[in-house]
Formats: sequence, structure tokens, C-alpha cells
Amino acid sequence: MKFITKFIKRPPSIVAIGGGTGMASLLRGLKEHTDKITAVVTVADDGGSSGRLRKDFDILPPGDIRNCLVALADVGPVLEELFQYRFTESDLRGHSFGNLFLAALTRITGDFSKAVEEANRILNVRGRVLPATLTKVALVAHHSDGTKSTGESLIGRGRGKWIERISLKPEPEPASKEIINAIEGADMIVLGPGSLYTSVIPNLLISGILPAIADAPAIKAYVCNIMTQPGETGGYTAADHVDALLRHATPNMLDFAVFNNGQISEKMRLKYAQEGAEPVIKGEEKLKKLGVKFRIVETDLVNADNVVRHDSARLAEALLTTYLDIVKERGKPQKSAG
Amino acid sequence: MKFITKFIKRPPSIVAIGGGTGMASLLRGLKEHTDKITAVVTVADDGGSSGRLRKDFDILPPGDIRNCLVALADVGPVLEELFQYRFTESDLRGHSFGNLFLAALTRITGDFSKAVEEANRILNVRGRVLPATLTKVALVAHHSDGTKSTGESLIGRGRGKWIERISLKPEPEPASKEIINAIEGADMIVLGPGSLYTSVIPNLLISGILPAIADAPAIKAYVCNIMTQPGETGGYTAADHVDALLRHATPNMLDFAVFNNGQISEKMRLKYAQEGAEPVIKGEEKLKKLGVKFRIVETDLVNADNVVRHDSARLAEALLTTYLDIVKERGKPQKSAG
Repeated sequence: MKFITKFIKRPPSIVAIGGGTGMASLLRGLKEHTDKITAVVTVADDGGSSGRLRKDFDILPPGDIRNCLVALADVGPVLEELFQYRFTESDLRGHSFGNLFLAALTRITGDFSKAVEEANRILNVRGRVLPATLTKVALVAHHSDGTKSTGESLIGRGRGKWIERISLKPEPEPASKEIINAIEGADMIVLGPGSLYTSVIPNLLISGILPAIADAPAIKAYVCNIMTQPGETGGYTAADHVDALLRHATPNMLDFAVFNNGQISEKMRLKYAQEGAEPVIKGEEKLKKLGVKFRIVETDLVNADNVVRHDSARLAEALLTTYLDIVKERGKPQKSAG
Repeated sequence: MKFITKFIKRPPSIVAIGGGTGMASLLRGLKEHTDKITAVVTVADDGGSSGRLRKDFDILPPGDIRNCLVALADVGPVLEELFQYRFTESDLRGHSFGNLFLAALTRITGDFSKAVEEANRILNVRGRVLPATLTKVALVAHHSDGTKSTGESLIGRGRGKWIERISLKPEPEPASKEIINAIEGADMIVLGPGSLYTSVIPNLLISGILPAIADAPAIKAYVCNIMTQPGETGGYTAADHVDALLRHATPNMLDFAVFNNGQISEKMRLKYAQEGAEPVIKGEEKLKKLGVKFRIVETDLVNADNVVRHDSARLAEALLTTYLDIVKERGKPQKSAG
């Protein structure tokens, strides 16, 4: 619990919605300030170890859940490293240990949500990690030329085709009471960072989540990605990200958005360019055209080592500082549920 | 800590030497009475999941270590079940989760003994579990007809051939300081239960262990198996077990031995007979011929559900009661090391 408690008595309860490594960076930052964190994590990944387990075990793909569990875990460095360990030998090659952990727990407890619940306990998670849905869904991308692609890993490969809309197949079960309660009771709701169409937006398509967010008294934020993702958000400005998000959401949903304005080194820029990814620029004109009314927070969020990531500490501070500013102006979110 | 503390102030420190499921039963019983338990576990198994990991990962076979870790773990039923969970699907089929845990930990920590040390911590083990050796050894059985078989799984299959002697190939590194210290400082040393030639005796062949046991002031016990094992101890009486053990040990090493005198149900007897296993009988005459001087404790140790096992609670009580009797007669073992 760092700076936030200097300003308010109780740390805010935060619901983070997304998936992927971006989400994990966010959670690592937030957990230094509050333990009232609920991570609602998308489970539509069909690539890599997750995809193999999904196919062979007929379970929900555990990869994103695993990353978020580890990000919020309080178990020491070895167990954390163990969970992210990827086997390199024999028929185990490519499997992540944490994914096998969740697969075995699913078999023992009889269902995926109980397995995740158990994992939250075993990993001494600060807050909790909830799968967005227990339905085995595939992502369908509807492209601007009228064609479709299905499956997260296919979407990423559909280069050059703009995505207009994402849908889920089949229609998943409505969101659990636990998720809806968390959203209703939150002080702040954070969408992203993470793959826009494959990690962030899918959560909004689960029946019940979007209206709950719209009705919630919480302060609502979107964290834009730092780099574009070819096949998914190739060529996107920050304004394009916001536009796509709002196309799948409700108007005026956001109270603020956080954009990166830090520089990417020439070396990293070239490395990413090999894969068709480039730094996300603001897109001032489109923002005007969209008539965006919410606050835009621009700050240096770049943490680049071998990959460009959101810096956990600076992202959390940007979010919480803006949260405090808005609370000062408007007062604390008034929750009916308390 | 149960009955033992009624009689002595501090619970005794116990070194258990063996491997396999028999050892796990023993440890489960002992941990109710003392947390000063050191389990020295054989690592020469080359069958099943252990064998695959040994071959594919070039690590020590983790199966017996895993069983003992779980037996002494204090982590709740789900994590225990998880560790013993065996995958049944896809290319993971047959792998035990706990073995994969130890394999991944070995990769992360860089060596098997550090991995086991970490596992002791993560599983909140009451006492500690130590691998008998870090050398990758194969078991060699020397048969009475002059032939040899190599590898634990081969030995079990060599039906009808009596084993005269077991050796290890290659000669392993001498036993660690930690093991020798534990033996020197023990109040009681328990050999077995467990596969005589493949779990109990191999430990005695590691340089340093046998003289340490012989010199130790501890009270020394052997727990005989309840059923014979075809290809290994087919047709063996309890006296034959003792004879084989002492052939690989030092004369007058034991203070007492525990034999089962409980009945095996007709149903279980038939089930085991299918696999060539039968109840171990005492072998009174051979015991006389061997001139056995130590105390023989005969008691009902049978716990038969689907398999015949040593009853953990009754075995621990038989051992500790006899330990107390001997202490009453002779006084507590006087340790130089404290």
C-alpha cells in the first residue's frame, strides 16, 4: 500500500478487465496500492500451450488466467518462476507449468472455476482472479471486406484485413454473480491494457458485463496499448483503439483514458517493425472527430527491456492519481452495494 | 504429537530410510508424533512417469521423493491430491503432476537437490525429505545363477530368479553431510518398509551411510513388508527379508524388527495371488538358524482397502512403543552430536 493511502483512508477496490501480458503488468502495479483487486480475465486464447490444453483436455485455455494469478500471487520468486516455466524437453515441450497446474486442478476439482478459485488460494493471491466466462467460446472477427476469421490465433494472422467487429461463438453464459457484484461495488474499473480485440473487448460481449459497467458508480478508465498488433490493430492510433472499444461498448462509458507518450528506442522500434508492430501514436484529429469528452492522460509508460511493456509502477500511479483527481472533483463513487 | 509426549519430554528425532509407498505410509504415521523426521529416499526408480522424466529430462527419477514429500506435507487435501494426480490425456498421459513439479523445479533451480529443498519448503513439509544420492545410478541385481539384471523395472520382471546381491552402477558420490549428520543425531533409525532390493537396500550401498548407521547411538529398526514381491522377494519369509538386509549391512545392526501378524482377507489374497504376491510369513526356523538376537515385534499392521498397505497409525505406534521400551531399559541414545 503505497502513496494512495496518504490521500484516502481505505484503498480503492478496483476491477481490471482484460487479459494477456498487459493485464499482468497492470496488476503487478496495482497490488502495491490495494489488495481489493478483481481481475476479470478473458479465456478465448487458442494458441500455444493454452490451445493444446483446450483441445486435448477440453478445458478453458488457462494462459491469461495463469499470468494474472502470478501477477497477484504472494508466494516468493521461485514459485512465481515455476508457474511461468515452459518445458523445453520431450513431449512436454512448450507446455507452461502453470497451465498444467490449472489443467490438473480442473480435473481434481471437477470444474475450471473451482480450479481457479483453488489456485487463488494456493498462490495466496492479493485480490482475486476470475475467468470472464466458463463457456468455451471462440472469437469471430468480422472484417471490413465482409469476411470472417475465427479463433484468436487466426485473427492475429489475418494481416491487412481490418476488424470491424468481434463476436463470440457460441453465445456464452451470462457473467457470474461474482463478476457483476465486483463491478457494481468497484471504485474504479480499468479496461486494458491488452490485445484490443482478443483480450479486452471479448469481456464486454459477455451478457451482463456491459450494462453492469455502464450502471456502476465507479470511475472508468481505458489503458491504450503502447504498440500496434499486426492483423489485429495494425496501423491503429490511440484514437482508433478508443473508437473500436466504444463501438463495442456504450457511449460515454469512460471517465478517462491513459495513452503512452514515452519514446521507444530506435533498437526496439526496429525489432518490433520486423513483426509489423509500431508505436501507437495519439491520432489527435480522429479524437476530435469522435468528439471524445473524457479526460486523456498522457504519460511515459514505456518499460522496454527485451519487449515493450507497460511499466507497472508508472501505470498504476497514472491510474490512481487520475482517480484521486476525479474523486476530488466529484466525490467518491456512491455505491448502492457498499 | 500424540502419545509419545506423555512419556518423554521431547519427541524423538527419526531417520527413515527407504522409498516407495511403504515409506510414505510410515511417514504419515510418524508425523503425528514428531516433526523431527528425516526421510532418506532412494532415487533409482526407472519405471513409469519417473522413468520417462529420467530419460527425457536427464534428471533423477522423482517418484519416490514425491510420495514422501506429500506424506509429510502440510498443505491441505487439494494440493496433496494435485501432487499425486496423474494425467490421463494426450501426450501428458501417465505423468504425475508432482513429478512434473520436481522436473520444472530442477530446471529452475539448476539441480535436483535444490529442487527437493525448495519443494520441502513449498509443501510445508514436517521434517525433511532428502534424496539418498544425486548420482544417476542404476540398480544391478546379481542372481543366484550368476546372471545379472539391470534397472529397477527389469529386476521386478526377473521372476523365478533369486537375487543374491544388489549393487549400484556407477558407484555413487558419497552420502551428503546432511544425511550423515541426520543419522548421527537420530534417536531412532527405521529401515523400510518398502521394496527390499529396490527401495531399502540401495540406500545402504551409498558410501558413508552404512558405517554411519552402525556407529550411530540411535535405536535401529527394520519394518518388514506385508506381501512378497514377485521377481524381487517371491517366496520370501520375514526371516528371508532380514537375512537379505543383513547380508547387505553390518551384523548386529538392528535393535528390533517389526513383522505383521494380521490376516489378509481371502479376497485380497486372491487378488495379490494373480500377480504372484503372497502374505509374508514369519519363517521361525530360519530366524533361529540366523541366530537373530534382536527383538521381534509382531503386530497387526494390515490396512487393506484396494491394496494391502501398512497401517500408518499402527506402524508408528508399534515403532514408538518399542522405542520407549528399549529407552526404558537402556536409557536414551547418547549422541555425541547432541
